[in-house]
Amino acid sequence: MIITTIKEMQAFADVTRAAGKTIGLVPTMGYLHDGHASLIKIARQQADVVVTSIYVNPTQFGPNEDFAAYPRDLEGDKKTAYAAGCDVLFVPDDREMYGKTCLTTVQVKKLTDGLCGKSRPGHFEGVTTVVGKLFNIIKPHVAVFGQKDAQQALVIKRMVQDLNFDIRIIIAPIVREPDGLAMSSRNKYLSPAERQDALVLYRALQKAQSSIRNGETDAAIVIQAMTGMIAAIESARIDYVQIVDAETLETVNRIQGSVLVALAVFIGRTRLIDNIILNN
Amino acid sequence: MIITTIKEMQAFADVTRAAGKTIGLVPTMGYLHDGHASLIKIARQQADVVVTSIYVNPTQFGPNEDFAAYPRDLEGDKKTAYAAGCDVLFVPDDREMYGKTCLTTVQVKKLTDGLCGKSRPGHFEGVTTVVGKLFNIIKPHVAVFGQKDAQQALVIKRMVQDLNFDIRIIIAPIVREPDGLAMSSRNKYLSPAERQDALVLYRALQKAQSSIRNGETDAAIVIQAMTGMIAAIESARIDYVQIVDAETLETVNRIQGSVLVALAVFIGRTRLIDNIILNN
Repeated sequence: MIITTIKEMQAFADVTRAAGKTIGLVPTMGYLHDGHASLIKIARQQADVVVTSIYVNPTQFGPNEDFAAYPRDLEGDKKTAYAAGCDVLFVPDDREMYGKTCLTTVQVKKLTDGLCGKSRPGHFEGVTTVVGKLFNIIKPHVAVFGQKDAQQALVIKRMVQDLNFDIRIIIAPIVREPDGLAMSSRNKYLSPAERQDALVLYRALQKAQSSIRNGETDAAIVIQAMTGMIAAIESARIDYVQIVDAETLETVNRIQGSVLVALAVFIGRTRLIDNIILNN
Repeated sequence: MIITTIKEMQAFADVTRAAGKTIGLVPTMGYLHDGHASLIKIARQQADVVVTSIYVNPTQFGPNEDFAAYPRDLEGDKKTAYAAGCDVLFVPDDREMYGKTCLTTVQVKKLTDGLCGKSRPGHFEGVTTVVGKLFNIIKPHVAVFGQKDAQQALVIKRMVQDLNFDIRIIIAPIVREPDGLAMSSRNKYLSPAERQDALVLYRALQKAQSSIRNGETDAAIVIQAMTGMIAAIESARIDYVQIVDAETLETVNRIQGSVLVALAVFIGRTRLIDNIILNN
């Protein structure tokens, strides 16, 4: 079933809840791949009714980003979502979501200062605002997000905690192609040569992992090795390579406890992100 | 019944909703007076279960404002609330509401720029954030706010619309003392002499009303007459006297359509607000 209006979606949520059923939400921007399918499968296990939202949210794209070019394929999305166990697709348009004007925003401070927040000003404000809206529209008991967007996952968890949304948040593991590339709708942008070059993101993360497992505790040394690997790829331009505390996202110098190794790299004109959490 | 924890409040809301009952919310900062009672009575008519929250929210007070001194009287509040038809008092403490840290805020732009927003920076961010939290904690079908806080009423309505809270907002008329003073918990601060002086707020609004009804359409002239009246009171110091569009809160020069005449005046050290909506 496809629902396109907020009113119908809220009414459906009310009827579902009144019947004593639980609702699981997977918010997406569409162009679904196996990574999204894995989130839907998790929601399927956790809730009676699974809703997947498909909405390319303009407010989380910067002026020079790929909003207009962002890939869209509703027919393909239907097949992927239903095959993974989705019951309802919520597919609103911009007018439905933002009306004439939207004066209200939800902001999470501090956690959004670094990493992608630094290179994409306004991005997380767009994310938290639209996710807040989706929560109020779909009224889920549980919502599933992907670890690939590691900072987003922490920001959403924090928003839910701070604003007391009565929603359980599940963060699902990254799904990778057989050669290690993290699945992303943006992989579609890559030329065959760039697709090969893009493997350097995961290879750099693996390098960091083995280095840290072998006892390296100096974050600068680990990062230097990663940036060296990436710099060797001609099509690659580093946005950031960082090692941060996995909860606070604050930069760490000495690696201990749970750390997030995260990177954003342009391969040609395509910005890709990837990350790994290491518990030391 | 008194509930003090977020978990219990959400569980109560779930049980109430599962039983097919509607929830009405009246958010307050306590020290309840007949104005609050009127809001509770309206909620009583609109919902099966009426919840009144009592929480002096620190984040909506500025550093030089009266947070610490704000009057509190839980025993009196119980009597007033139950007598007006309240079923449940939600009375959390600061630790319950804000935990160790709260990094998330809800902001409404534009509507919060002028009037009280100008003289109380951060005030409305505190209001919208705490009301967003209360909505997620108490899960009401309907919430009642007072017209006395005219700007707050519009800001909350806008937040509900923009973030798609599935909650009906009712704005209830101002309740006045027999001599015209708008009821407010802060009236308690006034000395007997100041209590008399405070009548100038409503008198100035009445002056504006009669002047506009008599055909005056120049906002500057109406405001001048009001400020003149207030300036004649020695204990009074004007924060603002404004005539704005009743929907957008933008300043109007020529009075037409629906306008909000609003003022904030210090009587001694006590800041009082009042307003009137005129439809022309």
